[in-house]
Amino acid sequence: MSTSPIHATFLFSAPDQAGLVARLAGFFYELGLNIVDASNHTDPFVDGGTPRFFMRIAVDLSRLSEPKALAKLGGSTTRKSLETAFDGLASSLGGTWSVGYSDVKPRIALLVTKDPACLYDLILRQRAGELACEIPLVISNHPHLESVAEGFRIPFFTLPVTPATKQDQEREVLSLLRRHHVDLVVLARYMQVLSEGFLDAAPPVINIHHGFLPAFQGAKPYHQAHARGVKLIGATAHYATADLDQGPIIEQDVARVTHGMGPEEMVRVGRDVERVVLARAVRAHLERRVIVEGRRTIVL
Amino acid sequence: MSTSPIHATFLFSAPDQAGLVARLAGFFYELGLNIVDASNHTDPFVDGGTPRFFMRIAVDLSRLSEPKALAKLGGSTTRKSLETAFDGLASSLGGTWSVGYSDVKPRIALLVTKDPACLYDLILRQRAGELACEIPLVISNHPHLESVAEGFRIPFFTLPVTPATKQDQEREVLSLLRRHHVDLVVLARYMQVLSEGFLDAAPPVINIHHGFLPAFQGAKPYHQAHARGVKLIGATAHYATADLDQGPIIEQDVARVTHGMGPEEMVRVGRDVERVVLARAVRAHLERRVIVEGRRTIVL
Amino acid sequence: MSTSPIHATFLFSAPDQAGLVARLAGFFYELGLNIVDASNHTDPFVDGGTPRFFMRIAVDLSRLSEPKALAKLGGSTTRKSLETAFDGLASSLGGTWSVGYSDVKPRIALLVTKDPACLYDLILRQRAGELACEIPLVISNHPHLESVAEGFRIPFFTLPVTPATKQDQEREVLSLLRRHHVDLVVLARYMQVLSEGFLDAAPPVINIHHGFLPAFQGAKPYHQAHARGVKLIGATAHYATADLDQGPIIEQDVARVTHGMGPEEMVRVGRDVERVVLARAVRAHLERRVIVEGRRTIVL
Amino acid sequence: MSTSPIHATFLFSAPDQAGLVARLAGFFYELGLNIVDASNHTDPFVDGGTPRFFMRIAVDLSRLSEPKALAKLGGSTTRKSLETAFDGLASSLGGTWSVGYSDVKPRIALLVTKDPACLYDLILRQRAGELACEIPLVISNHPHLESVAEGFRIPFFTLPVTPATKQDQEREVLSLLRRHHVDLVVLARYMQVLSEGFLDAAPPVINIHHGFLPAFQGAKPYHQAHARGVKLIGATAHYATADLDQGPIIEQDVARVTHGMGPEEMVRVGRDVERVVLARAVRAHLERRVIVEGRRTIVL
Repeated sequence: MSTSPIHATFLFSAPDQAGLVARLAGFFYELGLNIVDASNHTDPFVDGGTPRFFMRIAVDLSRLSEPKALAKLGGSTTRKSLETAFDGLASSLGGTWSVGYSDVKPRIALLVTKDPACLYDLILRQRAGELACEIPLVISNHPHLESVAEGFRIPFFTLPVTPATKQDQEREVLSLLRRHHVDLVVLARYMQVLSEGFLDAAPPVINIHHGFLPAFQGAKPYHQAHARGVKLIGATAHYATADLDQGPIIEQDVARVTHGMGPEEMVRVGRDVERVVLARAVRAHLERRVIVEGRRTIVL
Repeated sequence: MSTSPIHATFLFSAPDQAGLVARLAGFFYELGLNIVDASNHTDPFVDGGTPRFFMRIAVDLSRLSEPKALAKLGGSTTRKSLETAFDGLASSLGGTWSVGYSDVKPRIALLVTKDPACLYDLILRQRAGELACEIPLVISNHPHLESVAEGFRIPFFTLPVTPATKQDQEREVLSLLRRHHVDLVVLARYMQVLSEGFLDAAPPVINIHHGFLPAFQGAKPYHQAHARGVKLIGATAHYATADLDQGPIIEQDVARVTHGMGPEEMVRVGRDVERVVLARAVRAHLERRVIVEGRRTIVL
Repeated sequence: MSTSPIHATFLFSAPDQAGLVARLAGFFYELGLNIVDASNHTDPFVDGGTPRFFMRIAVDLSRLSEPKALAKLGGSTTRKSLETAFDGLASSLGGTWSVGYSDVKPRIALLVTKDPACLYDLILRQRAGELACEIPLVISNHPHLESVAEGFRIPFFTLPVTPATKQDQEREVLSLLRRHHVDLVVLARYMQVLSEGFLDAAPPVINIHHGFLPAFQGAKPYHQAHARGVKLIGATAHYATADLDQGPIIEQDVARVTHGMGPEEMVRVGRDVERVVLARAVRAHLERRVIVEGRRTIVL
Repeated sequence: MSTSPIHATFLFSAPDQAGLVARLAGFFYELGLNIVDASNHTDPFVDGGTPRFFMRIAVDLSRLSEPKALAKLGGSTTRKSLETAFDGLASSLGGTWSVGYSDVKPRIALLVTKDPACLYDLILRQRAGELACEIPLVISNHPHLESVAEGFRIPFFTLPVTPATKQDQEREVLSLLRRHHVDLVVLARYMQVLSEGFLDAAPPVINIHHGFLPAFQGAKPYHQAHARGVKLIGATAHYATADLDQGPIIEQDVARVTHGMGPEEMVRVGRDVERVVLARAVRAHLERRVIVEGRRTIVL
């Protein structure tokens, strides 16, 4: 039994047009559902040239079964009928949308290799209630971190990979993701490039890159940063795409470094940035705040 | 002749209740006016215990004289009739509101003493188009900065003050503010405490305090900070109230200092923070983003 | 067998006088020992009025047994004889000093209550090689975190405390610290105030306060910060003294918060700042970079 | 008449070897000159593979004419004889060095085009005593900012440039720099690429790039940053080299941006970062803290 009311959070986008806020807010008002949080953004810079409207609306479902909603939804107040009604509105506005419910926690798979920092960090945040999700499994190409996952009683799967077995290994990973009903994959320092085929078939994938993209793409970014003599190093969380390190950026941050730090010291300083940036990005995704628009993200 | 469309920006707050976003957005939708920017916040922490709703809505007035608005507003599409109609809605919701128009630039009076940094900074930002306002006058208790104001052809008034003449001097300042139709007073390092009587009679007053409030209230905050051995120093922009340094905070920021810096060096580092913090606060006020709620501000 | 050379790190302070750098550097030069890192600071602001000189010198001990050192140290090249010789120099300059060796890892006791974030963080950093120390035990007034310590095979002692038993409990804590040869105590969210008697008898104690000192001293600093409407929240690591939250500050940092965050959300944001600030302070202490001077610290 | 004692600040670098700190500090100790500030760094990452030692030493010259120095310098205590003696020491260590005196203020030429922000900022900091330099002239390829320079009574030279006249114009700029005895050129948003020939003949040149190098090189970096959807924008101050935007970085910083900001808004946010980064870099250069080592800088 949950004591806090259940929320539905809608993400909506459409070509900009008059009255969008009023139409969307009015939809829920007529159902008698209270909007507990709403934010919107109209972006004039979308590639095609037409401004595009983005909105996030969180509504309290407590009154979904009351007469007002019942009348409006044609006698059925299931989530399905709510979604059908919203889809009718969205279609009439030329929009796309998605919805999540606060009592259905997204299921995250963590993919790792040998570095425990991000793995521990995400698990501890989930346990502390900072990340509203379940972590049904951890997958690695290496047995190194098994004891960490086991310590938290999370199933751990070791799927080694070589260039020759990459296709097979990815198929096995996909199979594990499906079997565990995974909604989001987080690459928590998984030292493998995923194929386009994998990314097409998988749920959304968030990666943490230990550099301030678009600078320092590719391998050993801290060594690159040291060689270039930068005074700040960064980390970037982004959705993985087939073009490595080119996916839409969700979150970035930096830390100050000095001439006195070698690449190893930069790794240490950078690790703190990586963890926080990855956690913020995963949290924004879980709270349904992120919409991808071309190469950019709108974070509502 | 202005080529960009004129906007009206409404700030509204009321006890939280169902349908507020829909009612407010619907009001403008029915008038045929396009909402170009909207954001809202429901604060559960307001003192009385009842959650309170805050909203900022910017609407494009281009279609204010079209038949749709004309019909709705009873035959008159002046700003006055728009305001009367909005007031009717706000009253029915138990709310308070205010409005500003993008073609009516707020008029700012800068009060200074001897430090030129914030004075130059605000004037240059206004000239660069960063601050949508007019600066019809600068008032000082000291003639020191007259040449700066004159260099930008801004009238400069020197009104010296002593404990004995404080009441008279404040009356003269108030008279100047009225005569110049001042909408906002900015204390850009004005080294005088304003009386409660002055603050009651004057337009809103924004002050910059060169410390991270609530730490280091009162005089010589950098010397206090140095003696306490802090590792960060800050600046705070807030609305002035009769309780010195206790007014609602609009913006704060910090900069890192080291044991190697004496109080003078902290002053230098702090000056950069002060300027940016004050400019951000003034800009937020001018864009009608700030609502005072008790001792706090909501910045929409 | 250690492959990297062993270092001795000296911390020295004395009233400022001519030739201090030359005298100190010359001491090691004459012994044939290479200085691998040195930094110094002359502070004109020390309370008594006389400027004071602070220096950190790290020297490579590889050549301590070679003829040059042997001749200079009177035939004995033990660490003891090196320390005796340095003490002679320091005395002649009216200075105080201490030394640590890179092959003798300081032993840290972590004191906790129920919050696991800082506990995990410090253990993981120690395991990752970021903190050059041993953690021989964790002490808590509560059994809550026992499984965390056990997971890393660190002995965990539960010593409950009530106002009536406080004196006895502190005596037991002290006894544990002595028996485990503890060099540094870290209060990793230990929700108890330590008595003056305890602090006098214990090794140095570092505390993390989840507020930007000197603002928000005492209990529930995030609730205080929320009520005051600040735009940044902070954390402060400091040496514990009998005056609660008044000890010399080692490190501070802040994070941005908005009007939309309640006290609980501030706790979450603040937790990230706390962990990083505490880890940086412990690291600076372990690297022998921190000298306490009155209410301030010099971090070399 | 100056009341504060005159300082000489030496910058020294050499292949790392035993006793360098002692030898350098000893040199001034034997002369009876007090070291008021010293810092050093040994860099193990220098390209050739040999670690390199860098040191900055500031000494008080008050006692340069006393018997101790007189005896040591062979009867002459001019600055020239001090430099000759130091050069002897440096040569014996295989090092390179330079020196500056606190009573000889470096002379800076500011090169600008149309943007007044950095120009005002540098002049105001110099007037406020934050930058210990003289600004004998401002050069522009455009008459736009003449009134700004004139307002501060600084000579302003307009030297327009086209591809056809570039070589001649650069020759005129060089001639102006020589005639005004310029020690440092600061490109305060000078929208021209300088030729290799110019850079070879000119004093050191510091440029401000309004992007976080090495990302976003070249033109319109904020537009590039917007298109890529980054969450932070930056600015980089570096020594100008023939490879545009590839010179050794002196200072960098960033500011947070959101999806709601278009390129113009990023320009506004970025301008605050640019000014502070450029001022910090110029200040570090003037205080003789910066040594170029390959593509990196050591900032002591």
